[in-house]
Amino acid sequence: MSAPGTLTVVGLGPGDPRWLTPAAAQALAEATDLVGYGPYLDRAPPQLGQRRHASDNRVELERARFALELAAQGHRVTVVSGGDPGVFAMAAAVFEALEGGDPAWRSVLITVEPGVTAMLAAAARVGAPLGGDFCALSLSDNLKPWAVVEQRLRAALAVDFVVALYNPISSARPWQLGAALEIAATVRSPDTPVIFARAIGRADEAITVARLAVAGGVAADMATLVVIGASTTRLVPRREGAPYVYTPRRYEARP
Amino acid sequence: MSAPGTLTVVGLGPGDPRWLTPAAAQALAEATDLVGYGPYLDRAPPQLGQRRHASDNRVELERARFALELAAQGHRVTVVSGGDPGVFAMAAAVFEALEGGDPAWRSVLITVEPGVTAMLAAAARVGAPLGGDFCALSLSDNLKPWAVVEQRLRAALAVDFVVALYNPISSARPWQLGAALEIAATVRSPDTPVIFARAIGRADEAITVARLAVAGGVAADMATLVVIGASTTRLVPRREGAPYVYTPRRYEARP
Repeated sequence: MSAPGTLTVVGLGPGDPRWLTPAAAQALAEATDLVGYGPYLDRAPPQLGQRRHASDNRVELERARFALELAAQGHRVTVVSGGDPGVFAMAAAVFEALEGGDPAWRSVLITVEPGVTAMLAAAARVGAPLGGDFCALSLSDNLKPWAVVEQRLRAALAVDFVVALYNPISSARPWQLGAALEIAATVRSPDTPVIFARAIGRADEAITVARLAVAGGVAADMATLVVIGASTTRLVPRREGAPYVYTPRRYEARP
Repeated sequence: MSAPGTLTVVGLGPGDPRWLTPAAAQALAEATDLVGYGPYLDRAPPQLGQRRHASDNRVELERARFALELAAQGHRVTVVSGGDPGVFAMAAAVFEALEGGDPAWRSVLITVEPGVTAMLAAAARVGAPLGGDFCALSLSDNLKPWAVVEQRLRAALAVDFVVALYNPISSARPWQLGAALEIAATVRSPDTPVIFARAIGRADEAITVARLAVAGGVAADMATLVVIGASTTRLVPRREGAPYVYTPRRYEARP
């Protein structure tokens, strides 16, 4: 194998296999090699003769380089992400690795297949909280200073975007989510709905909608996606079960 | 049929049927009634005995009420959106209609199935431009004053979000995209990559990446999604074809 191969970056969507697009499923099935974080690889259907290269969650760039090298050698490589690969996932790491890496890698045909990112699935589960303008913000300060996170969050809240928080918490980042919710509380009403969507689409899925005033007390972990409503985000009671949450499309300027 | 029925809101994803999730496909197949904008209904596979209620593009709330009424009468109704139904699409209209409508509608079991929204597919086509924090902003001023659009755009640019512009232009809104790009040019470098993704996943797909300095001259229409890069968004040349566009995950505070 000496002709350059291909590298396809796919997202599995959140946990439920019924959210995996046919295009991503095809890229999984046709690959000679799958590269990704172990638990994601375990979600790809078994494929005879396919090699699987599992790695730890924290080595995106190394994993991307490995995948590019494998593809440059002529393999059909599929890099596996959760959600959508372009949203806080592997696609950016692949292009970073490409830019800084072996010039031979430039011959690899790279394709990205979009997927259902966590905030869309979380929103769908409760109603339509992303019905207006919204932002997606990672709370991880591994890759950017907390000052930037805070500045972006304040700006988004000030102009009344709905805000989806990715990577809200981890053992290495225990206080950031609490700090973000405290900042939100200085701008938004205490009644603002906040959605905590954990392990969406998996058997252990747990979704909580809390008022901002008490949101700091809701448990969250690495598998949680948090959505802070806009000033217009509303609850609609239903006959049984938790109310729906939605953000109206219409928006009047505030005085 | 007197027991309340169900209403499922699905997104077809952008044009390519390989982006339709199995969950959305199932909701299309199991419906007794499909409700939606005509061209979207035409994309649903034919189903014997299924009733299809096509409507014009501009009557979301009326269509949502009709769907709820049909479901309240006991039908299995699927409301069909493009992209993801929760992003500038039908899901919010359904909950608006529910909130202001017949109390009997509260008995309908409403489910939203997430989909691949246009900005994810547009991003995937060119690389990973949404690799950092980003916003989704509708330029339509049917539902909010232009002053709000402008304020949100300025705030998002000021803190260096990547900005995806939905509904950038129409015959009724001819100048808004130009105005948005002019605002961007006051904040971002003239070299900032701007992506124009038209009819993504359809046979007539056309994707252009232009420098912000000349982006005002790129043709766009109702089927176009525009992404304005952050200050860090970069091009990576490839051996053949247009360069990839990506936004690095890492972000340093600017002085």
